[in-house]
Amino acid sequence: MSPLHFDVLASAAGSYARRGRLQLAHGMIETPVFMPVGTQATVKSMTPADLMDEIGADIILANTYHLMLRPGADCVETMGGLHRFMAWNRPILTDSGGFQVWSLGALRKIEPDGVRFRSHIDGSSWFLGPKESMRIQRQLGSDIVMAFDECTPWPATHTQAEDSMLMSMRWAADCRNYLPVNKHQALFGIVQGGMYGDLRRQSLDAVQSMGFEGIAIGGLSVGEPKAEMLTVLDNLAPHLAKDKPHYVMGVGTPDDLIEGIDRGIDMFDCVMPTRNARNGSLFTDDGKLNIKNACHKLDERPIMADCACYTCRHFSRAYLRHLFVAKEILSARLNTLHNLYYYASLMRRARQAIEDGRWCSFRDSFLERYLSLSR
Amino acid sequence: MSPLHFDVLASAAGSYARRGRLQLAHGMIETPVFMPVGTQATVKSMTPADLMDEIGADIILANTYHLMLRPGADCVETMGGLHRFMAWNRPILTDSGGFQVWSLGALRKIEPDGVRFRSHIDGSSWFLGPKESMRIQRQLGSDIVMAFDECTPWPATHTQAEDSMLMSMRWAADCRNYLPVNKHQALFGIVQGGMYGDLRRQSLDAVQSMGFEGIAIGGLSVGEPKAEMLTVLDNLAPHLAKDKPHYVMGVGTPDDLIEGIDRGIDMFDCVMPTRNARNGSLFTDDGKLNIKNACHKLDERPIMADCACYTCRHFSRAYLRHLFVAKEILSARLNTLHNLYYYASLMRRARQAIEDGRWCSFRDSFLERYLSLSR
Repeated sequence: MSPLHFDVLASAAGSYARRGRLQLAHGMIETPVFMPVGTQATVKSMTPADLMDEIGADIILANTYHLMLRPGADCVETMGGLHRFMAWNRPILTDSGGFQVWSLGALRKIEPDGVRFRSHIDGSSWFLGPKESMRIQRQLGSDIVMAFDECTPWPATHTQAEDSMLMSMRWAADCRNYLPVNKHQALFGIVQGGMYGDLRRQSLDAVQSMGFEGIAIGGLSVGEPKAEMLTVLDNLAPHLAKDKPHYVMGVGTPDDLIEGIDRGIDMFDCVMPTRNARNGSLFTDDGKLNIKNACHKLDERPIMADCACYTCRHFSRAYLRHLFVAKEILSARLNTLHNLYYYASLMRRARQAIEDGRWCSFRDSFLERYLSLSR
Repeated sequence: MSPLHFDVLASAAGSYARRGRLQLAHGMIETPVFMPVGTQATVKSMTPADLMDEIGADIILANTYHLMLRPGADCVETMGGLHRFMAWNRPILTDSGGFQVWSLGALRKIEPDGVRFRSHIDGSSWFLGPKESMRIQRQLGSDIVMAFDECTPWPATHTQAEDSMLMSMRWAADCRNYLPVNKHQALFGIVQGGMYGDLRRQSLDAVQSMGFEGIAIGGLSVGEPKAEMLTVLDNLAPHLAKDKPHYVMGVGTPDDLIEGIDRGIDMFDCVMPTRNARNGSLFTDDGKLNIKNACHKLDERPIMADCACYTCRHFSRAYLRHLFVAKEILSARLNTLHNLYYYASLMRRARQAIEDGRWCSFRDSFLERYLSLSR
């Protein structure tokens, strides 16, 4: 039996947008989907009950790099795997650690079979490559395992981007060949190639020839102008295998998600809703709202008038501002609840629009309102 | 109509312990009760839903001193009062600010009508006395308003304690006479007198002669040996008006609560369960457990085997240790949930024991187990 079953239920006319359903070992996911990031086996400030009952999250992401360093993959495995450890019974996607080694690890040294680096926590020495990443993700027991890759820096010359992509493709083949994942785990390959259309196409062909259960696009949202990111997605969209789920990693803002869906993307993850929440930056259809601003001091309104999240149902901007200014823990929590609910609900609205055959008008009116007022 | 109605439903034989019911403007409270502390209009890390549904809190406490400084009493009043501001529809008790001026305010100068001090937040200059405290607590709109007093330092000479107590009694009379509280607000007087039995009795007589709706005992848990605190309560217990609720302020540990109930106390508050939670110190019937200890690294057990709190129903000590070590916000939350649930459930057990006529055996067996294993 396949560890993943994916159905496209509806497709938009005049767009690559599609409405799908993804069956994984721990449950069903309606796509397009946004996956909250639970780096250290916790979506910061949220309980599993919040994620399920208040936000309606179907799937969350956890980070191999962080968990291998602390509490350690052996610890998580001994405790019955990641689902049991964090009391989350729905699907989990784990990244491979490649991106974090690149962004957090110190004194990185790339070797043929992986990367030697020092922990950002205590300076201890580690090695992570395709083999290690597959072993650790098996210990974690996630539903979706990501191939180990290198995130090509931006900017990069064509040669740099090509070398990096080719190495990622060798590692992707290694991940596929090791196959040390459990039968219930689906493995996704990752397309690299920087901002170069030819390299991206070459990488996509390579990934699609290896028989992964899903196709991810990595190396975006790494500092490049938004137009470049969209060009990469435009270039790939016609060639993405239609029977596989498409996942763009680490993206992005609400408008990025809408643009991504429009280019055939089914899955997203990003720290933005959770991290921004802790910094007092709250998402609305009219752009971002900074809760610490003095104008909210006596504002009885909720963050967003028609939002049904727990925060907006109960609390005024004045109270949320007070909590933020007073550095109260509840501030992070209520803000996170709102931002994750906003993202989840944006995905629900997108799915409904595709089902109802009104994707393009939904996309256009959302982007017009969101972008005009964000400026 | 009285803003408070108090009934004693059962009394223990051979003890001053009693089981009561307190009707306030925003609801009914079963006593003995522990009131979680919500200093800045939030019980740290908890939503109102947590407090109601997961902990079963009937009443919480908020601090006049903190709220007058930030966000300001005018702000809370404009936002519809404290209940609406923090979305808590059950009873609230506000302290008078006296204790915090004493413990947090800088450059304090005591004047006949109150205290001049500087804010611990921004150094701004403030004045707080009986009149100001009554006005602010009216703006906050709490169910129970506390008289403004001075917390006598420990140690203090008899003369110092007497002068301080007499000033508190003058201020108590001022609070009673100003009567600026709303009709739905009950006003409690506070007994002072340091560790001197004669002063405490004199203060109790004064408070009881002024017709307050409840009697509080202040100036305990300020550094004195536990035996001295219990001696003060022993000395007062026979003389506390039986038809009024008795509240000992800022106390304490689980064994303190049991000892207090045994001496006729109906109401308690303390930052200990919430503050200890954030420091990783968790309460159990077998004493305190420090979750950061390495022995919990691979421990699959919950904090306390027979605890029904959300934390103990879902998470292992290993996971809680991981969250604490990784400095995750969820650590504060899950630990706080457990500690507050433990305190609430200890009060439930005490009430049941009094109702069932087995208070003294409950008290003795709890104290024996708790104290022997805490050592």
